[in-house]
Amino acid sequence: MKDNDFSHLDEKGSANMVDISSKNITKREALASCKVFLSKAAFNKVRENDMSKGNVINIAKIAGIMASKKTHDLIPLCHQVPLNKVDLNFQFDNSSYSIYITSKATTDWKTGVEMEALTAVSLAALTIYDMCKSIDKTIKITDIQLEKKSGGKSGNYNRK
Amino acid sequence: MKDNDFSHLDEKGSANMVDISSKNITKREALASCKVFLSKAAFNKVRENDMSKGNVINIAKIAGIMASKKTHDLIPLCHQVPLNKVDLNFQFDNSSYSIYITSKATTDWKTGVEMEALTAVSLAALTIYDMCKSIDKTIKITDIQLEKKSGGKSGNYNRK
Amino acid sequence: MKDNDFSHLDEKGSANMVDISSKNITKREALASCKVFLSKAAFNKVRENDMSKGNVINIAKIAGIMASKKTHDLIPLCHQVPLNKVDLNFQFDNSSYSIYITSKATTDWKTGVEMEALTAVSLAALTIYDMCKSIDKTIKITDIQLEKKSGGKSGNYNRK
Amino acid sequence: MKDNDFSHLDEKGSANMVDISSKNITKREALASCKVFLSKAAFNKVRENDMSKGNVINIAKIAGIMASKKTHDLIPLCHQVPLNKVDLNFQFDNSSYSIYITSKATTDWKTGVEMEALTAVSLAALTIYDMCKSIDKTIKITDIQLEKKSGGKSGNYNRK
Amino acid sequence: MKDNDFSHLDEKGSANMVDISSKNITKREALASCKVFLSKAAFNKVRENDMSKGNVINIAKIAGIMASKKTHDLIPLCHQVPLNKVDLNFQFDNSSYSIYITSKATTDWKTGVEMEALTAVSLAALTIYDMCKSIDKTIKITDIQLEKKSGGKSGNYNRK
Amino acid sequence: MKDNDFSHLDEKGSANMVDISSKNITKREALASCKVFLSKAAFNKVRENDMSKGNVINIAKIAGIMASKKTHDLIPLCHQVPLNKVDLNFQFDNSSYSIYITSKATTDWKTGVEMEALTAVSLAALTIYDMCKSIDKTIKITDIQLEKKSGGKSGNYNRK
Repeated sequence: MKDNDFSHLDEKGSANMVDISSKNITKREALASCKVFLSKAAFNKVRENDMSKGNVINIAKIAGIMASKKTHDLIPLCHQVPLNKVDLNFQFDNSSYSIYITSKATTDWKTGVEMEALTAVSLAALTIYDMCKSIDKTIKITDIQLEKKSGGKSGNYNRK
Repeated sequence: MKDNDFSHLDEKGSANMVDISSKNITKREALASCKVFLSKAAFNKVRENDMSKGNVINIAKIAGIMASKKTHDLIPLCHQVPLNKVDLNFQFDNSSYSIYITSKATTDWKTGVEMEALTAVSLAALTIYDMCKSIDKTIKITDIQLEKKSGGKSGNYNRK
Repeated sequence: MKDNDFSHLDEKGSANMVDISSKNITKREALASCKVFLSKAAFNKVRENDMSKGNVINIAKIAGIMASKKTHDLIPLCHQVPLNKVDLNFQFDNSSYSIYITSKATTDWKTGVEMEALTAVSLAALTIYDMCKSIDKTIKITDIQLEKKSGGKSGNYNRK
Repeated sequence: MKDNDFSHLDEKGSANMVDISSKNITKREALASCKVFLSKAAFNKVRENDMSKGNVINIAKIAGIMASKKTHDLIPLCHQVPLNKVDLNFQFDNSSYSIYITSKATTDWKTGVEMEALTAVSLAALTIYDMCKSIDKTIKITDIQLEKKSGGKSGNYNRK
Repeated sequence: MKDNDFSHLDEKGSANMVDISSKNITKREALASCKVFLSKAAFNKVRENDMSKGNVINIAKIAGIMASKKTHDLIPLCHQVPLNKVDLNFQFDNSSYSIYITSKATTDWKTGVEMEALTAVSLAALTIYDMCKSIDKTIKITDIQLEKKSGGKSGNYNRK
Repeated sequence: MKDNDFSHLDEKGSANMVDISSKNITKREALASCKVFLSKAAFNKVRENDMSKGNVINIAKIAGIMASKKTHDLIPLCHQVPLNKVDLNFQFDNSSYSIYITSKATTDWKTGVEMEALTAVSLAALTIYDMCKSIDKTIKITDIQLEKKSGGKSGNYNRK
């Protein structure tokens, strides 16, 4: 097994940005998701807040969008990618006291936007954590994962 | 239940940065952790890479440290906090094909560094994802959580 | 009249960061304000939005807070200042179709936070502009000014 | 009146980045302006400085250009836009002791550069404020507005 | 000799971003290099480190890549340029106790990537300095220069 | 020779931010310098420009100051350090067609500002390069080095 199984390591095992010179500009899309588990009390407060003014979720959404635009500045070997749009959605699961966050990032560019979608849900989740940490320190962010990906040479991906 | 149960919302439910004017500069420390689950193949490659040159883990560590210094720029209501140090550690669990990431952030400041520690593990995990995504798209980042926290008026916290 | 009447120019007229080495760490506070004039239609939509979910104003508030933390990165000769808090407030003037934005920034540091308070209202106003630009291109941001300042050797200031 | 009159709010009233996937890359241009009113003394110093070395205005110009390139990082729902050029111009009005700042931003992209032009004049004005604040705290930045806009589906705009 | 011999100054001598509106998107490439001279002791430690884990060089490489993506944010009149790839290479010269750093930046864009390549080697060199400064304060970074450039209207350049 | 001769590598050879928890806040100062060698033609233009409006040097100075404030964001293991002041000076050497750049950074903090001073001269030099690159591609930046350092436990340093 050689280091260059990793596209982000060169033949000497050193950090390697993938060369996208010969890639085509095509429509690329990625969907990611994660879950934030809260205590019952914290969950209920966020849900009630969401039904009225909704600022907890709104601030988390803004944080996710803004972080997504900074992905190349956070993840060392990511390219700068001009996003067409990044969107986030938040669903409350009243039985497990968790918030399910999904994101969708799109671009017309030479490389995909998996990391942009994943960064969006991660920072949105961390922002919910930050908003709730004074009332609940047990919060757990889990299942940050890619749901779907389309566009590009490597083809489509659908998590089952 | 009023919105101002959230320290990050004011009495009108609007976004609120906590006023740290009257807080004392004291030593504050936070430990966070998360797990990255990989396919067997990807896990073995990262582990073998770690035993030789180790660049996958090293790049993830650098990403975690650098992101931690940007926490206030990523999470809307976080204060700018000058870190004394942020450190990360990575352990391979050969039975579950997962990498356990821990971080420790310290400061002498008027507010804690929970978010800095959590941001460190999150971006380190996302960077492992990025390094491995060409060989494994099923990677899952789980259990981003606070392990321990000390310093400050709100007292110590230890996850059980 | 010599160039060095400007504290930000040295005796040769060249850019000059003020040396704050000998200044004391004291509590400093600054209040700034501005007005955003909209068309009647746009104003009414923002006001109605504010009475229900309020996202236009909320996003502007977040933008103001986040920009304030970046002041030293935007204004070339500003020092890095760790803020205790920055807060913004928005008032609707139904007669003039304008939104009055005020900000208050505080720190315990060796230099004041005028620019942080002014940057907060400016970016909040520009964000309202951005949110409304699809329905009104005549929006005007006016009267960005310092209202009050306290702390530091130069003494207090109160706009009359 | 529904929230989605705002292109930056979705049908649920939540923050919404406009999807530019289907927009064409075309030449887009935006002109913005603002005025900075100073005390007679401060105005005269800046004007005299401008006639000799001119560093006050030059630093303001650099600040405006650099801020314009950061627009997407300052205004939450703005896209990353690669600018062809951003330029600023400063005119002294000796009768009103004010400086009239204009900017022009251009791109070949899928969305316009109004916010880039407006951000440029705003940060240039704030930088003049910063350069002069030790001699004048009454400075007022006013009439930040769009002058002209061309390119894109929404057509041209000319302020009368 | 007029100021506008400088493409980055306009006819009045004021800062000027070059207008790339009418330039074509073509493949552009730039190679830069520099040398870092260390004490014999520090050089030997970095070389030995490189033969085992190699983290000094690896961290310098990551720093170079990440800084390169920020070039427009560091050099006032640079355009935002989406890089296809930036790569760095490090060679040890055992006779002069120096490390020779080369970089190669590529893009398909309307302007070249000289500054991106030069920024990459400069920050990689400064990072080696930072890593070694506790054992050697005499380190000297020298010969930061463009080696080669291709693409664009101004034609190719090869340093002899 | 063990990896932990490097303060920036831990005992396993992994990246290590120095822990400054137990360090005292003291006055710290660092002076750095570098030289930019130009062609005779380019040198003369910059010198003439400097005698009139001086924008080439002024823009380089602003770039150096702004970059210095970003040092921790550029060099992976640097701490965030609030600067009291950073200043740069430029001298023309008519015999060698070179510009000698010096910087001085000061802080009251728990760690030194060597890297801040070195980053300031480096980015100022790169900005001169950028301003002159349309008329001279042979420009060489040399001798980036620490001149002097005071404050902190490791004592003073004076380059001979």
